Amino acid sequence: MPYVNIRIAGTLSREQKARIAEEITDTLERIALKPRSYTYIAFDELPDENWAIAGKLLDED
Amino acid sequence: MPYVNIRIAGTLSREQKARIAEEITDTLERIALKPRSYTYIAFDELPDENWAIAGKLLDED
Amino acid sequence: MPYVNIRIAGTLSREQKARIAEEITDTLERIALKPRSYTYIAFDELPDENWAIAGKLLDED
Amino acid sequence: MPYVNIRIAGTLSREQKARIAEEITDTLERIALKPRSYTYIAFDELPDENWAIAGKLLDED
Amino acid sequence: MPYVNIRIAGTLSREQKARIAEEITDTLERIALKPRSYTYIAFDELPDENWAIAGKLLDED
Amino acid sequence: MPYVNIRIAGTLSREQKARIAEEITDTLERIALKPRSYTYIAFDELPDENWAIAGKLLDED
Repeated sequence: MPYVNIRIAGTLSREQKARIAEEITDTLERIALKPRSYTYIAFDELPDENWAIAGKLLDED
Repeated sequence: MPYVNIRIAGTLSREQKARIAEEITDTLERIALKPRSYTYIAFDELPDENWAIAGKLLDED
Repeated sequence: MPYVNIRIAGTLSREQKARIAEEITDTLERIALKPRSYTYIAFDELPDENWAIAGKLLDED
Repeated sequence: MPYVNIRIAGTLSREQKARIAEEITDTLERIALKPRSYTYIAFDELPDENWAIAGKLLDED
Repeated sequence: MPYVNIRIAGTLSREQKARIAEEITDTLERIALKPRSYTYIAFDELPDENWAIAGKLLDED
Repeated sequence: MPYVNIRIAGTLSREQKARIAEEITDTLERIALKPRSYTYIAFDELPDENWAIAGKLLDED
């Protein structure tokens, strides 16, 4: 541990995921004192029609 | 918040997801007094071979 | 399945959880055609200091 | 319940998932005394570029 | 990875958790060929009133 | 969205959680272009006996 799960609607580029993973791992090392090698980060990219805010799917007009 | 994650095996139509999201958001507003705009709902639709009940994958004969 | 996970900051009364579970199970039966006995619902009630929106913990002034 | 979520990077064959589901259901029956029919197991197979360890995506050289 | 999340209503003894963790780690090593040191297992023990099956909380008469 | 779930064994101070939430929200704003107000972060702090690595609970000698 830590295990971090990042869930978004839509997609991220590989480059975005690489930079986010690097920054979050760094944040947890500096602030929570977790060794870098312990941090797992899993990204879930969901279709817009699988995410709702305020009762409306995100692909709605 | 709230964050609601609905996980099923198989798929739902867009219309089913829209109606489920609307009803659950309404439920949480009426009963838990959560403002509609705060409620996130994420649907995960898994292949039948990725879900097991009673030790058997759901696509098993 | 379905498995539904409802995560909120703060607490719900037992009565609120009972009514929410009943309504969501009903929603999934009517709209997604899932038999009532298959639906699992798990509630996670997190302390306000364990939930952040917009970069601020919810217990912040 | 129990609800078990197994998340990996990469894929498993159908046969691997079937055997893992059978063994874990058996483990929970023997040790936790949970009836087999109650145990749900959901597998999530993520692309290597969606999983990071030690700040590096798994598809990195 | 793998990351395994086991969610139950009620509690498990420390001994039960130790034996379950050992067996599941072994299962993933033998069948999915995942090195033992990579497997994280997290147990969530929920109060009976936070889990519903078939629309009823588990602490209901 | 995004919804970020950070799961650790042990505890974090309120100050650590506040700083981690701020940094991760900032990371997702800069790199993934997600408006700050959309980002939810939920922390789960598990007892050491509820987390296993390599088949051993973390509270084991």
